[in-house]
Amino acid sequence: MRLSELQEKVGGDVVGDGSIALSGVGTLERARADQIAFLANPRYRSLLESTAAGAIIIGKRDRDATSKPRLVVDNPYATFARVAQIFSPMTSVRGAIHGSAVLADGVTLGRNVDVAAFVSIGANATLGDNVRIGAGCVIGEGADIGEGTILAPRVVIYPHCQVGRRNVIHSGAVIGADGFGFAPDFKNGEGEWVKIPQTGRVIIGDDCEIGANTTIDRGAIDDTVIGNDVKLDNQIQIGHNCTIGDHTVIAGCVGIAGSSHIGRRVMIGGKAGVIGHLTIADDVIVSAMTLVTKSIAEPGTYTSGTPMQPHREWLKNSVHLKHLGEIADALKKNGELK
Amino acid sequence: MRLSELQEKVGGDVVGDGSIALSGVGTLERARADQIAFLANPRYRSLLESTAAGAIIIGKRDRDATSKPRLVVDNPYATFARVAQIFSPMTSVRGAIHGSAVLADGVTLGRNVDVAAFVSIGANATLGDNVRIGAGCVIGEGADIGEGTILAPRVVIYPHCQVGRRNVIHSGAVIGADGFGFAPDFKNGEGEWVKIPQTGRVIIGDDCEIGANTTIDRGAIDDTVIGNDVKLDNQIQIGHNCTIGDHTVIAGCVGIAGSSHIGRRVMIGGKAGVIGHLTIADDVIVSAMTLVTKSIAEPGTYTSGTPMQPHREWLKNSVHLKHLGEIADALKKNGELK
Amino acid sequence: MRLSELQEKVGGDVVGDGSIALSGVGTLERARADQIAFLANPRYRSLLESTAAGAIIIGKRDRDATSKPRLVVDNPYATFARVAQIFSPMTSVRGAIHGSAVLADGVTLGRNVDVAAFVSIGANATLGDNVRIGAGCVIGEGADIGEGTILAPRVVIYPHCQVGRRNVIHSGAVIGADGFGFAPDFKNGEGEWVKIPQTGRVIIGDDCEIGANTTIDRGAIDDTVIGNDVKLDNQIQIGHNCTIGDHTVIAGCVGIAGSSHIGRRVMIGGKAGVIGHLTIADDVIVSAMTLVTKSIAEPGTYTSGTPMQPHREWLKNSVHLKHLGEIADALKKNGELK
Repeated sequence: MRLSELQEKVGGDVVGDGSIALSGVGTLERARADQIAFLANPRYRSLLESTAAGAIIIGKRDRDATSKPRLVVDNPYATFARVAQIFSPMTSVRGAIHGSAVLADGVTLGRNVDVAAFVSIGANATLGDNVRIGAGCVIGEGADIGEGTILAPRVVIYPHCQVGRRNVIHSGAVIGADGFGFAPDFKNGEGEWVKIPQTGRVIIGDDCEIGANTTIDRGAIDDTVIGNDVKLDNQIQIGHNCTIGDHTVIAGCVGIAGSSHIGRRVMIGGKAGVIGHLTIADDVIVSAMTLVTKSIAEPGTYTSGTPMQPHREWLKNSVHLKHLGEIADALKKNGELK
Repeated sequence: MRLSELQEKVGGDVVGDGSIALSGVGTLERARADQIAFLANPRYRSLLESTAAGAIIIGKRDRDATSKPRLVVDNPYATFARVAQIFSPMTSVRGAIHGSAVLADGVTLGRNVDVAAFVSIGANATLGDNVRIGAGCVIGEGADIGEGTILAPRVVIYPHCQVGRRNVIHSGAVIGADGFGFAPDFKNGEGEWVKIPQTGRVIIGDDCEIGANTTIDRGAIDDTVIGNDVKLDNQIQIGHNCTIGDHTVIAGCVGIAGSSHIGRRVMIGGKAGVIGHLTIADDVIVSAMTLVTKSIAEPGTYTSGTPMQPHREWLKNSVHLKHLGEIADALKKNGELK
Repeated sequence: MRLSELQEKVGGDVVGDGSIALSGVGTLERARADQIAFLANPRYRSLLESTAAGAIIIGKRDRDATSKPRLVVDNPYATFARVAQIFSPMTSVRGAIHGSAVLADGVTLGRNVDVAAFVSIGANATLGDNVRIGAGCVIGEGADIGEGTILAPRVVIYPHCQVGRRNVIHSGAVIGADGFGFAPDFKNGEGEWVKIPQTGRVIIGDDCEIGANTTIDRGAIDDTVIGNDVKLDNQIQIGHNCTIGDHTVIAGCVGIAGSSHIGRRVMIGGKAGVIGHLTIADDVIVSAMTLVTKSIAEPGTYTSGTPMQPHREWLKNSVHLKHLGEIADALKKNGELK
């Protein structure tokens, strides 16, 4: 594909020879002469001299930082992503239902739906046009999968959950298992936890990606709701009745307890946690492994935890963590600290 | 169902019109006139005035806080859970073995067992009466599933594990994978980790719930043992040879390393960790994201970690965390701190 | 099996009656007279007097610490592991392809391959000799599984990934799902995350073990690479383009963000995290629940976090954590701290 053809598809201005033929994307360090690379971070500008890439996707302010054929755009990284999609399109659907698949009564299939081997689809479920269901998926009774959505192998969608359009859900994800709701009924240490039926659903919007082995629990009475363009990495746990706003991205291994509400365009770092019944405002950033224990009303970055140290030094300091109160009291007594 | 009929099933005293017809449960905020709500937390007492609920489950001390038809009980939350179960019963078993299921020789099936599509059951496994096995489950050789237990789709039970009665195990849970046991055999940095065969089992009691994608490893030589009425949320990891006492509840994303012993009625918050070979007493509460690094002998709440701050403030403070030893030394030198 | 026969298989010196017949392994506390136990940790030396074990695996310096028949070796724990393997060999392959398995065109099978029920294998995948594929596994197009590797039930290998020889992969593991790569394209809060196609693979060496529900993402352009003899516990997440050196062991629930490089013989404790684009040197030890936020160039143990306390004491101290800067400033003002 020529650079000029890419430009027609993704926009921007071609500077230099638009007829150069390209067969894929690469990084500045490793791209070959038939590949196109990109410069988004000025830190890597020096690589422009040494790169073997045949063409470069570059921002407007760096327009003249290379003499190679280039595509000058507002957002080189996003343009790179779109160009990469052109060279690596999602496998197309074939419109085939594997003979082993088990479809219960009342299943509605759109046009051009792929259902792979050993898929089980419950009664009255609906699959939109161009939906692709990987091997071994289980789709519960009355569930609804919107057009163009792709389920990788071995995804489970519990009954009555709704998944919007153009989502990608990776293997092992479990959508709609029961939320964790039990009422204690104990006297003098004897008794039982009484299960509260989880009768809500999970509702997922459009254009989301849900990572491998991520779990999203169904609501207790009301629903758990994931917005549009939400990107969830692997092994995330989202409790019952949470809501996640549009464009929010959550890195791997994050846990969000029940009934918390995450705003739009929030970014949550890996292994962070959010306790239940909180509200996090739009545009908040939560650092990796931070525990959010109260609602956050203002945009900005929030962090908990302590810096890593060599263990020997950590020991020396951490022993005093248990006596910070005494240290502060000593200083206050002397009037050194208010 | 009339309020008086509910009272016959769950106990308590009806005050007001017991003939009111109810079709479900709801929260005080959202319940409709044909639904019953509950008041457990006095903080929400003011909602009694505005609620549209047709009837209320309420505690004895709040008996006169509403004039609506009400069910006066000792434990309104637990009663609410039982009433909700009446309105949303678990789907009943149909006693059907799907034609695609593969049952090896010597499988024993109780009465009224459901086995869904694409289930594989190993030789000499036993399923009790009214057991329900979801699509795509794999049950290993010699495993034993007690009566009334429900496996959601895609659960794996490794060989010889025992699951008691009336358990619910959610999708993606893996019961009985090998514990993490390897003996190092290295000299001068060369060598290998030698696998220690994991020949114990997982034994799960009665009335437990195990969340989606939770993993419980089999014991190395002895067994890993989960008690009765233990409630495990999603994505929990329990290492080999742990024991978990009756009525203990563990929130999502908790990890418990091998050979730790958790008492009865323990509550562990989300994302907490317990290192190996510890003992935690009955009735302990562990806060979210706390790392338990030593045994806990006394009931109470235990916490580690630091409070979340705006990142800018966190930076200012955390730099000093690395110098706490020096701060304490300075104070001790002056006699301000013992 | 006689002690002398074990010695022929695993080496070491027999002291005492080599003709004693043994039927298994046990711990010093619980072994019976027909079992062999081991002493690796001198702390347990006193158990030698009370143990009922028929024979002992023991180190050279403890050669005379018991009068029982014994196998004197350099590394009693590793020898114990090898002896345990002799008594509990892995189930042997039967060379049977279950009738329900679906093999696409061009699949290459080695000799003596086991494929269980409901397995789906994509076009042009290759399975080496003595490979064992558990029920419900899904192996993508063009994937390659080396000889002697065992996949427990319900493992997913995405297309084109390579798994070496003699690996064990436990249930629910997902190898090769898309890495978490999206380019932001927003203006004034409106826009979208643009997916970056993840076209790299996962390459796993030989002799690794991968725990239940662990996920390893495929590379974005280049590959994610796991070395040889790497042992990964359950519920670990490894991001795209990471590399993990030989003999590294990682405990449960660890998350490693994208493009981080972990050295050889590294040990990472449970629930630890490593942020992206870091390098960790050979022989580093990371403590449990530590967050690694910068590269580590020197071997040694590294730790973050704070010690657990009773919650009441934690509250007293943690309030001052937010004012450490002021405490340090007060001390500096007085010249008590540099």
